[in-house]
Amino acid sequence: MQQHYEALAKNAANYVPLSPLSFLSRASSIHSDRIAVVYEDLRRSWGETAARARAIATGLRALGLTKGDTVSVLCPNIPELFELHFAVPMSGAVLNTLNTRLEPETIAYILDHADTKLVIVDREFIPLLSQVFQRLGRSIPVVEINDPNAPSSETLGGRDFEDLAAAPIEPASFVGPASEWDAIALNYTSGTSGRPKGVVYHHRGAYLMALGTVAAWQMPHYPVYLSVVPMFHCNGWGHPWMMAILGGTKVFTRTPAPDRVLAAIRAHGVTHLGAAPIVLQMLAEHEDGGGDRFDPPIRVLTAGAPPPPSVLEKTKAMGFDVMQVYGLTETYGHISQCLWQEEWNEKHPAEQAQLQAQQGIAFPMVEDVTVLDNETGEGVPRDGETQGEIAIRGNTVMKGYYKDPDATRETFKDGWFWTGDAAVVQPDGYIQIRDRLKDVIISGGENISSVEVEAVLFRHPAVQAAAVVAKADPKWGEVPCAFVELRPDHQADEAEIISYCRANLSGFKTPKAVVFAELPKTSTGKIQKFQLRETVKAMKD
Amino acid sequence: MQQHYEALAKNAANYVPLSPLSFLSRASSIHSDRIAVVYEDLRRSWGETAARARAIATGLRALGLTKGDTVSVLCPNIPELFELHFAVPMSGAVLNTLNTRLEPETIAYILDHADTKLVIVDREFIPLLSQVFQRLGRSIPVVEINDPNAPSSETLGGRDFEDLAAAPIEPASFVGPASEWDAIALNYTSGTSGRPKGVVYHHRGAYLMALGTVAAWQMPHYPVYLSVVPMFHCNGWGHPWMMAILGGTKVFTRTPAPDRVLAAIRAHGVTHLGAAPIVLQMLAEHEDGGGDRFDPPIRVLTAGAPPPPSVLEKTKAMGFDVMQVYGLTETYGHISQCLWQEEWNEKHPAEQAQLQAQQGIAFPMVEDVTVLDNETGEGVPRDGETQGEIAIRGNTVMKGYYKDPDATRETFKDGWFWTGDAAVVQPDGYIQIRDRLKDVIISGGENISSVEVEAVLFRHPAVQAAAVVAKADPKWGEVPCAFVELRPDHQADEAEIISYCRANLSGFKTPKAVVFAELPKTSTGKIQKFQLRETVKAMKD
Repeated sequence: MQQHYEALAKNAANYVPLSPLSFLSRASSIHSDRIAVVYEDLRRSWGETAARARAIATGLRALGLTKGDTVSVLCPNIPELFELHFAVPMSGAVLNTLNTRLEPETIAYILDHADTKLVIVDREFIPLLSQVFQRLGRSIPVVEINDPNAPSSETLGGRDFEDLAAAPIEPASFVGPASEWDAIALNYTSGTSGRPKGVVYHHRGAYLMALGTVAAWQMPHYPVYLSVVPMFHCNGWGHPWMMAILGGTKVFTRTPAPDRVLAAIRAHGVTHLGAAPIVLQMLAEHEDGGGDRFDPPIRVLTAGAPPPPSVLEKTKAMGFDVMQVYGLTETYGHISQCLWQEEWNEKHPAEQAQLQAQQGIAFPMVEDVTVLDNETGEGVPRDGETQGEIAIRGNTVMKGYYKDPDATRETFKDGWFWTGDAAVVQPDGYIQIRDRLKDVIISGGENISSVEVEAVLFRHPAVQAAAVVAKADPKWGEVPCAFVELRPDHQADEAEIISYCRANLSGFKTPKAVVFAELPKTSTGKIQKFQLRETVKAMKD
Repeated sequence: MQQHYEALAKNAANYVPLSPLSFLSRASSIHSDRIAVVYEDLRRSWGETAARARAIATGLRALGLTKGDTVSVLCPNIPELFELHFAVPMSGAVLNTLNTRLEPETIAYILDHADTKLVIVDREFIPLLSQVFQRLGRSIPVVEINDPNAPSSETLGGRDFEDLAAAPIEPASFVGPASEWDAIALNYTSGTSGRPKGVVYHHRGAYLMALGTVAAWQMPHYPVYLSVVPMFHCNGWGHPWMMAILGGTKVFTRTPAPDRVLAAIRAHGVTHLGAAPIVLQMLAEHEDGGGDRFDPPIRVLTAGAPPPPSVLEKTKAMGFDVMQVYGLTETYGHISQCLWQEEWNEKHPAEQAQLQAQQGIAFPMVEDVTVLDNETGEGVPRDGETQGEIAIRGNTVMKGYYKDPDATRETFKDGWFWTGDAAVVQPDGYIQIRDRLKDVIISGGENISSVEVEAVLFRHPAVQAAAVVAKADPKWGEVPCAFVELRPDHQADEAEIISYCRANLSGFKTPKAVVFAELPKTSTGKIQKFQLRETVKAMKD
């Protein structure tokens, strides 16, 4: 009877807040001697990795960091960033990984908005960080990672990262969070408003993301995983935490340069990797039919944009077993997978490629990934035709946006997280994106807010009105294409507009084409972007 | 800063109570047409299985069952019991699977203690249930499963199970629990006190057990799993729920008779199964070197007792890839695994068998499985010599014992669940049981409380004192061996004592040997069982 069940309370033996820190603790106990990290000549076991994470956590606390403080990190994929995925949450602080490709203004905005207390920077990015502090008008305490493989060796006079790692370990440092709902990471995304929004992850979600990915990707024990997807994107899709479950080896190359990546795959027997389609394409082009086919095939997850058929074809020939996954920063990364179906074996390669470009079906730790009519809130029929918006529910959906209650409320309408992606559902239940309701352009795996690019265009003295939409691109998936209405009696050509944007935006956000024309508007003056998208589709290069 | 994180609240989009019912919901959506159930000529898809579970849940509610009510089930491994693993929790009730090998008295005790509101019975066990109701002195509403493959067709006049399954589905029936801490199952175990104790599982634990097992057992999608381990033991180690994650096929044979099991493996391409060592031994003996080796090997988990070397050797030759796992009813089944290490490949088969008989290392969803000095509470050194007690902490540890606050308190001392198993830790972190601190005998995978057997012996008019200990047995692993002190001027021989026990106990609990002797006692009169265990070791058959 219910009252007898209610008498049975949680205690330390039967209730532990879910946290990926538990996976590290287990790995350091049972996989202590297995290699966790391979980077150039460096090898570190899980025992050493756990000991370093504990020391760094202790060191961070000694610097005065406390629960809920933000630690921002400007760093490529190297072992230190991997260690920080455990050490920062272990200290109680929140990990804020920064996209190293952003412009100084945007990073300055993020550091300010995130209330960053400490920046940990790889020495390659010290010049960038100096510019950031200039824009910010103040500096923030810095810890510097002196990777001997980094191209630069300037200093901001910050403490050496290895001093932290050498801190004497506080035995009490290796404890999980008080609550599984506690924040573990803060990841800024390009929103439709043009201002990055701070997506907050909790320990519970990070734990379930990691364990659910093992099930969805059918992971074996001890994989050799190549770290390509930047850890500043959704914490590398949660894979750093997943590796601790499996006692696997993580191989680092610092950059995704194709020669380094391919050499590392061959040198270390890589079995798994995750990468954006653009990276896969670069690998295929670098290999260019040469090199032995990988056998057994390397298991690859790709996300950020549907992989083009040519990329699927070439990487298959190389021995890559590629599965597309779909998700957003707000969902800790991938929450649906385009799982291969046996009956696809018989199809024509072109049709296979089309099927593989679907967003697919839910990961096991997600409660629901579905397509809803956003007027009625009802699910659309499984007819492959009726469009609705992808909506998501589950424990790997963010806590909300940091210091942005309005945006949080808006995105959590009616018990769902609304993605802004318009999609259909096929009769087999596979979801397929048809259009994007929000103004985001995805170029080489990076999200670009069209509103942010438009804001720069509007600042140009000759521009009266501007709109930016995605243009299909064989290499980058999409690139920004600008439509510009000039002011009367003002002049500007494509080169002038592009050069103006380049001076004010990261390279990947700069429009690759500019069209001068009167912009189509609704009766209320709203620019009809769908018409511009049609124009772009009809354009010849 | 912490206050900004605290402002981000749980909502329906980002927080869903963990429950294995979510896995069924997902399976019915994305694996709808895949076969979930194979039994004789019966095939049911995941879509049909989910629809039946919803109907049965609706039907149970229509019978008046409500949250926290106990539904007891007396049934072998057939599809109906599998469906009830979803349907009963979906209705809000708690699933109490009964060991069909128990004596009527014990089952009567359980039904009474569990506050059972409804018994669902397979018609084979209707004669047993009639005896149970006689001992109980009352009857309880009954639903009858009329499996055409069942040997008996008596009736207690209860409702037909198929009437429940034909209930019109309430759309609202397919919802998860209000809290993940809600009870999902109530499983009675033989305790040291001789009275079975009601172990309470919650939805959170069942969810994590299923997902963690996928990672630990490196499960692929769509396994073909043969249902051998009784679902009345720890809900079949949580495997019914796990199958929904993987969209797999569960094959049923109703009994573990070797000919049926081997025929089913060959007919349906079984890839995975779980079974006690005794079942593996029976399979090996039945096969007796005949039959083709299974290739690829069938992945097998075994638990309940360490598998004897001869069984490991024979099953390996058959093409079984056997891994021993360890756990207790209180831990939802297995929480440690004897994971094969590459360096064992080089060892002598006898040494391999010894290594495989270790209890091993923690499953990924368990916080800690360790060996503690039960005086000091400190972990023992990893020296393979220092003995302590296995202690467990994590989210797959029971809520507690139903209506038994004293036993609950006692077993949850100092933040650990204490197993009563004495063990050492090897230098590689593998745990190995050395002795049992509690008086439990494990025979053919079934736990026997020595205290319960002793209580029957004490009732015999000729018996003055009695003690029961485990005796090693090549077939059953262990069997009960009774030591009896007769009253002055009373007579009884071994056959008389065994026959008396058989009349009062299930067959598997009946002592297989009786030794007449004065019992060794401490100065305070406590029987020194360790001395009896030494005597048994020295005995010849």
